[in-house]
Amino acid sequence: MTSIPFSLPKLIDGVRACDRASVGRAITLVESTAPHDQAPAEELLRALIPLSGNAIRVGITGVPGAGKSTFIERFGLHRAGEGARVAVLAIDPSSPRSGGSILGDKTRMEQLSKHTDCFVRPSPSRGSLGGISQKTREVIIICEAAGFDTIIVETVGVGQSEVAVRSVTDFFILLCITGAGDELQGFKKGVIELADLILVNKADGENERAARQLSAELNGILHYLPPSSPHWSPRALPISSLSGEGILEADSLIKAAITELRNSGDLQTHRTTQLTEWLERLFRDEVERAVLSLPEIKKLQQVLTARVVKGDITAREAVRELIGRLPIHPESDQIL
Amino acid sequence: MTSIPFSLPKLIDGVRACDRASVGRAITLVESTAPHDQAPAEELLRALIPLSGNAIRVGITGVPGAGKSTFIERFGLHRAGEGARVAVLAIDPSSPRSGGSILGDKTRMEQLSKHTDCFVRPSPSRGSLGGISQKTREVIIICEAAGFDTIIVETVGVGQSEVAVRSVTDFFILLCITGAGDELQGFKKGVIELADLILVNKADGENERAARQLSAELNGILHYLPPSSPHWSPRALPISSLSGEGILEADSLIKAAITELRNSGDLQTHRTTQLTEWLERLFRDEVERAVLSLPEIKKLQQVLTARVVKGDITAREAVRELIGRLPIHPESDQIL
Repeated sequence: MTSIPFSLPKLIDGVRACDRASVGRAITLVESTAPHDQAPAEELLRALIPLSGNAIRVGITGVPGAGKSTFIERFGLHRAGEGARVAVLAIDPSSPRSGGSILGDKTRMEQLSKHTDCFVRPSPSRGSLGGISQKTREVIIICEAAGFDTIIVETVGVGQSEVAVRSVTDFFILLCITGAGDELQGFKKGVIELADLILVNKADGENERAARQLSAELNGILHYLPPSSPHWSPRALPISSLSGEGILEADSLIKAAITELRNSGDLQTHRTTQLTEWLERLFRDEVERAVLSLPEIKKLQQVLTARVVKGDITAREAVRELIGRLPIHPESDQIL
Repeated sequence: MTSIPFSLPKLIDGVRACDRASVGRAITLVESTAPHDQAPAEELLRALIPLSGNAIRVGITGVPGAGKSTFIERFGLHRAGEGARVAVLAIDPSSPRSGGSILGDKTRMEQLSKHTDCFVRPSPSRGSLGGISQKTREVIIICEAAGFDTIIVETVGVGQSEVAVRSVTDFFILLCITGAGDELQGFKKGVIELADLILVNKADGENERAARQLSAELNGILHYLPPSSPHWSPRALPISSLSGEGILEADSLIKAAITELRNSGDLQTHRTTQLTEWLERLFRDEVERAVLSLPEIKKLQQVLTARVVKGDITAREAVRELIGRLPIHPESDQIL
């Protein structure tokens, strides 16, 4: 994709000028794992980081079928109507076996995609949580440097990806729907704790009453959970992406929250914590890769694995032996 | 929990004799992260590994509300009625923020828990996928050494825990229900690929027809997916944990599959692959921990993190610098 020679200064200028083709190309460059793309990607990011950090970063998750795409389209168009420039990034956890997409390839957010002030980009992020966040973080930097002031990071709620999305955003929305069983309520408890705002979608027609009731119940639950910031109390709200009911109110709540978080300094503290935690994970991933790719360690690993498979030693013994052979002395706290 | 002095030989004998208190205590010992428990845990496992490997290991997952507990109770009691000895292990991914349980603390599988030939144990496994599998693997060893011949490993289907459960079992069942939206069908695609058997639960009363139809549709989808073994073609089946309809048929299918897999040698190949992959992950986790706990590396990490937070360097530069300071030469493929 990036094998065609290109001028990096031109690409940087293109991103700055919010030229779509340049933004797309810059994203492809930082997403690339090809060795020859790493140096230009680093240079690109070095040039763009000073221009980044000025957008509101909103994370959205929800169970499959909650209507995330429809909501984001409505919400994005509403913001764009107010003059905002909206970028939507979809984190798409891939299927463990085929590497296929679980968000599907149907056309999503058609109007928003075509809007001149908006940008929609799926990120098929394979691999570790650290990997998901790394690429998304860098894509956010590019979008912010291009002048997008509202970044929406979306993921389907199937486990760890919520945590990844929350780790790169300022404000986290959980989109849910009525009709959940007992166990689902139990499941939600874990995710509810992550949410700054819960929107009960599809509050229209025959479902409106049930949606209002669920929203009230959720507000009851939220009341008993510790808030993630002393400057913002999470709440629930019924909305309809179909009729547009509640979208304006949701947006007002988000704006109020961001203002609070920004004025109190919590926004910056939160971003610093996110960056620090992510770096920690990145360091871990890279250290592990560097050490385990050493031929001597690789060979030892193979020998130990064969012995565990044969039943000669336990897995715990194998690990002890491998660690003992690293060029470090964990006991004496010294590098040799 | 293991601070009371105990005799390890007695504990080993107790597990061998399938004494419940001993089995429970042995599990607590291998689950312990306390340093003084590690040596006895290793010795215990060394003694029990030769006695393990003889059970059928069945993994079960399903969306919240699919009726997993009720099905496992029905299925377990059916097996026990045939003379099997059933152990149920529940992998319980914890809430990211509070560490709380998402399976809830309601009484589950009440009859099975009380059955003299059965054993039900939840495993609140925090941390990495490797960690989930490690503890579960070791708990399986204990249960098998105690003579349980049917091990059921259950998890709620909220992402990565399915993959963890599949990585420690021989046969993987997906329990699902009707009433899924379009997007849910898309979501299932990823998990469907992992399944050896899909059971459409709640095929009773007014729901029976819809369940039969979903089962037929799933069989259509399965037909187009590559089978995980040339000796077993995954299929779907409507069942009712309420009426018991389909439970016998499901069990016959599982038995037929296990016989096929065992006779073809696939069962053993599969277990060896699982063990190898898991060891790989375990080595990675431990290497990373050993290296990053070195004070010199810890300090460098702090300095680099501060520089990234200040915006002086990019995250990529920080990683390059940290890796460059490790006591290894990745370029020359040599340990110093």
